[in-house]
Amino acid sequence: MRISELATRSGVSAASIKWYAREGLLPAGNRTGYNQTEYGEEHLARLHLIRSLIEVGGLSVAAARNVLAAADDPAHPFGDTLGIAQASLPRSTTPPTAESVQQVTDAARAQGWEVFDDNPGLPAAAAVLDRYRALGREDLAATLPGYVRAAEIVAAADLDCITKNLDAGPATAAQTVVVGTVLGDALLAGLRRMAQASESHRRFGPTPGSPS
Amino acid sequence: MRISELATRSGVSAASIKWYAREGLLPAGNRTGYNQTEYGEEHLARLHLIRSLIEVGGLSVAAARNVLAAADDPAHPFGDTLGIAQASLPRSTTPPTAESVQQVTDAARAQGWEVFDDNPGLPAAAAVLDRYRALGREDLAATLPGYVRAAEIVAAADLDCITKNLDAGPATAAQTVVVGTVLGDALLAGLRRMAQASESHRRFGPTPGSPS
Repeated sequence: MRISELATRSGVSAASIKWYAREGLLPAGNRTGYNQTEYGEEHLARLHLIRSLIEVGGLSVAAARNVLAAADDPAHPFGDTLGIAQASLPRSTTPPTAESVQQVTDAARAQGWEVFDDNPGLPAAAAVLDRYRALGREDLAATLPGYVRAAEIVAAADLDCITKNLDAGPATAAQTVVVGTVLGDALLAGLRRMAQASESHRRFGPTPGSPS
Repeated sequence: MRISELATRSGVSAASIKWYAREGLLPAGNRTGYNQTEYGEEHLARLHLIRSLIEVGGLSVAAARNVLAAADDPAHPFGDTLGIAQASLPRSTTPPTAESVQQVTDAARAQGWEVFDDNPGLPAAAAVLDRYRALGREDLAATLPGYVRAAEIVAAADLDCITKNLDAGPATAAQTVVVGTVLGDALLAGLRRMAQASESHRRFGPTPGSPS
């Protein structure tokens, strides 16, 4: 198909398609003549994946490229794919304090988790505690045990999905990890807003908007 | 203090400080002479908040501006502040399908939630289910009930924190909602990566990296 048809079917503008190709997120099309390039169904599928990561998952183009590189490699060991999907987290420019890293580690161990020093989730979580402290809002860290319990429930649901897809081959399992991790964050953030509104309504009475 | 001292103490470059002031996130400093501007402790506190939202929370400058506008207004009703903090979610350019909105609504109601049509979490969560479908991965929606239970635990921890801060005045409660919602997403995403690694280790054996 021509780029115009690819744009219509994917919902991604021709300019963005060219940009993603230049940035290495999308394979180049097949040049069939002067100023004419053909694209296939594989380009359409890839654009769906790119849109998912960037528009719905909120990833930067650079973060999406890293995540896609992992999903592309069928020989990628499962653990590494998980590692690269995890690298989609925003990163603070300042390393977290040892105090906050310890606080997160203690909360995780109290829930019986195995804590891995090189897991990128550890500095990401610790950076949040550092920010609470910088804002004079250490009290917000009181949510930590609840968040740890919630994260465990989410991870169990994630791993159930991954386990089912191990039979479908390593490429599908890799896609499950990559897509599920990034889009799962967006799903959880959305559900959290809904739960806050519902819980606020239950505790404090009417909130703006009417129940559907 | 001069801008150079403010930059050192906040960890934000002078160029970024000027940019945040131009974009309306930071109040202007006090001009004390030709090419000289004085900043106070309130500018330092504000920069800590801006860094939290942008660097750790991963918000865009535009989203951070909306969120800060809500935190600034002491007369802001609690429910509206919650609404504006919720508006920090990434938004898909395509409205979600009625089918996915219904699927999220059903899952939330099954857990006993009050569902509000105008909660921005609803289209955000539904957009994720649409993306799963576009990718041919409807199976990933199997995580929905687990995510709903997890979101409820998180929201209960959030509301406990907010309830404690109601006594500290509406401005503090507003800050709790705004900061806690945005940074809470980042905290949860970090803990989720740690929980995935721990759960993966438990089910499949060794993963990259050694336990600390």
